[in-house]
Amino acid sequence: MTNVPNERRRRGLETMRQVNESGGERMLDELAEIAPDLGQFLLEFVFGDIYSRSQLSLRERQLIRLTALATLGVDYEPMKANVDSALNVGVEQADIIEVFVQCLPYIGFPRVLAAVQQTRKVLDERPPQK
Amino acid sequence: MTNVPNERRRRGLETMRQVNESGGERMLDELAEIAPDLGQFLLEFVFGDIYSRSQLSLRERQLIRLTALATLGVDYEPMKANVDSALNVGVEQADIIEVFVQCLPYIGFPRVLAAVQQTRKVLDERPPQK
Amino acid sequence: MTNVPNERRRRGLETMRQVNESGGERMLDELAEIAPDLGQFLLEFVFGDIYSRSQLSLRERQLIRLTALATLGVDYEPMKANVDSALNVGVEQADIIEVFVQCLPYIGFPRVLAAVQQTRKVLDERPPQK
Amino acid sequence: MTNVPNERRRRGLETMRQVNESGGERMLDELAEIAPDLGQFLLEFVFGDIYSRSQLSLRERQLIRLTALATLGVDYEPMKANVDSALNVGVEQADIIEVFVQCLPYIGFPRVLAAVQQTRKVLDERPPQK
Amino acid sequence: MTNVPNERRRRGLETMRQVNESGGERMLDELAEIAPDLGQFLLEFVFGDIYSRSQLSLRERQLIRLTALATLGVDYEPMKANVDSALNVGVEQADIIEVFVQCLPYIGFPRVLAAVQQTRKVLDERPPQK
Amino acid sequence: MTNVPNERRRRGLETMRQVNESGGERMLDELAEIAPDLGQFLLEFVFGDIYSRSQLSLRERQLIRLTALATLGVDYEPMKANVDSALNVGVEQADIIEVFVQCLPYIGFPRVLAAVQQTRKVLDERPPQK
Repeated sequence: MTNVPNERRRRGLETMRQVNESGGERMLDELAEIAPDLGQFLLEFVFGDIYSRSQLSLRERQLIRLTALATLGVDYEPMKANVDSALNVGVEQADIIEVFVQCLPYIGFPRVLAAVQQTRKVLDERPPQK
Repeated sequence: MTNVPNERRRRGLETMRQVNESGGERMLDELAEIAPDLGQFLLEFVFGDIYSRSQLSLRERQLIRLTALATLGVDYEPMKANVDSALNVGVEQADIIEVFVQCLPYIGFPRVLAAVQQTRKVLDERPPQK
Repeated sequence: MTNVPNERRRRGLETMRQVNESGGERMLDELAEIAPDLGQFLLEFVFGDIYSRSQLSLRERQLIRLTALATLGVDYEPMKANVDSALNVGVEQADIIEVFVQCLPYIGFPRVLAAVQQTRKVLDERPPQK
Repeated sequence: MTNVPNERRRRGLETMRQVNESGGERMLDELAEIAPDLGQFLLEFVFGDIYSRSQLSLRERQLIRLTALATLGVDYEPMKANVDSALNVGVEQADIIEVFVQCLPYIGFPRVLAAVQQTRKVLDERPPQK
Repeated sequence: MTNVPNERRRRGLETMRQVNESGGERMLDELAEIAPDLGQFLLEFVFGDIYSRSQLSLRERQLIRLTALATLGVDYEPMKANVDSALNVGVEQADIIEVFVQCLPYIGFPRVLAAVQQTRKVLDERPPQK
Repeated sequence: MTNVPNERRRRGLETMRQVNESGGERMLDELAEIAPDLGQFLLEFVFGDIYSRSQLSLRERQLIRLTALATLGVDYEPMKANVDSALNVGVEQADIIEVFVQCLPYIGFPRVLAAVQQTRKVLDERPPQK
């Protein structure tokens, strides 16, 4: 869409590498085949414009994302991407679970239980951490 | 429902006073007339069991609540209660707005704009802070 | 759309009269001006095809409707129409409130509290019953 | 969290055994590993405080739960738990299907069809009843 | 439910054949076993009353359906039925993807990415077109 | 955030003027006070990146937006902005109503009736067209 040096893209790639490089690249590869502009928006808008903002701490931004996804009731893939991101930047497993417990009064048990089970699956599939 | 000393109720009242005493009491008064058991669950379960947990910081728990409410797309009253709570425990106005900006890629503009406009109304109605 | 005798329409009108004649007619009048076919579908499909089915009792059908509306998180008007219908066919106020209490674990407090406050407003506005 | 005799827990276990003992225990076992407090809330709050209430009949409470789940659009597991519960306490298959048919005007065909297909899968997997 | 000649059913079958005969028949066969009335409503109300209306073009009606499904966040099966219908009546693959891109500001990335991945799966499974 | 000539902003302003200049400017003015970056994203991302794309016709893009908003169940303000936009670019009132009628099988009557009533209010408030 543009071939001038693109600051938003650069910032997006930097943020993507910081939080979840392999997950981000897999998603961009998938989108490249069927909806490349969507990959561009993901990189430039989501990673470049939004995730990279520094008003809240990186940890806080991860907690917010996990909350939004649990509340929406998403499938496994987007939850996995964000649980991985949270773990990658140092959020503890117990904190991730606690995010969903704090959501209980707002979103009810079915959505919370789904998020917890998705998280457990991510943990089971993750290569062991040293 | 019980007349033994109730630790959950005590903890709920303590938490309610810490975050939003006047808002909480107004809600409990309203519920006392039409659905008193619901007021009990609000106090004992929401404030006593969930809000009072300390795995995450008080600030983080507030950011989670604001995210869940914006994602659900609630009316003014529950958003007001939680924006007031956030401000009461020291979350800055700019941080509250930033929570909603961070939600943009997940919940879209209509829900984010609604949350921002509700927040603005809360700020307009709040007595000036010294 | 048709001028042959219409059994679905007849059954719809009969059901509408049974549960909430004034509310149903007000809605049909409103729709007549801007979206008359929608009024036809409301009468023939909703009242005629669905509400009039007798596999579940009339009371049970009302509880189901209140649950669906609370879970969707609707505005005042559709909730009012269905709380009125429930009261009209003999569902007690305490049973209506209890429907929403039973929903708590599934839909969370904000949607339940909204439904309870809408119900209270309906009760406040209803002419006193003998 | 507590080791004093716990009336809410006792009532929760009793209700769980009444409606779906094997499904409830499987869920509690799963949660014990990753989010034990969530299991406690499920037992004490959902089964002990809410499901055990007697303002509405056991059958009516099951119809409400099925409605809430269909409206939320949940995955197979929570729907299975509640279809099993309904069948366990004597709700007929035709009544379960009818709950979803009654939801049609409120939640639309995709959610209703999903609930019906989930129910069919539960029925296919259930050991034959004598 | 009726054995008089049924104009709504005739129109429904005609529309179903026009947009997605095999998908529609498979769904009706499935419903015939567990919820036959639901199949009747699908044929007479959805296909006969609604899809067959001509105020908007057939193409526009398909774009609307894809938008509604992406926004609801449905599972694969209903999305497949409607992507197939869109392709069957001549909507280009690029137009289907674009519908979801246009939804981005309203429904956020998780729902849009899910819809795009579902579409890709439909395309992968479709027999090659001449 | 940037002071170099901004092509996305230029394109956003152009699109905003084409579809709903007064509504867009009012929103940007509101956001300028409380969340100026959100106004920037609205202009550059929503209007500049998304609305301005030409794969689908302007009319088709409007129908998609109305569908997404009705399905989400938004409040009056965002629906007004998009009904105004649709009318401004020549979509007929009857076509707008028909979008919501086509949504009936997917989103149910409460959301459709809400969208129709919001549309009626927009029409009532609009200055008469010559």
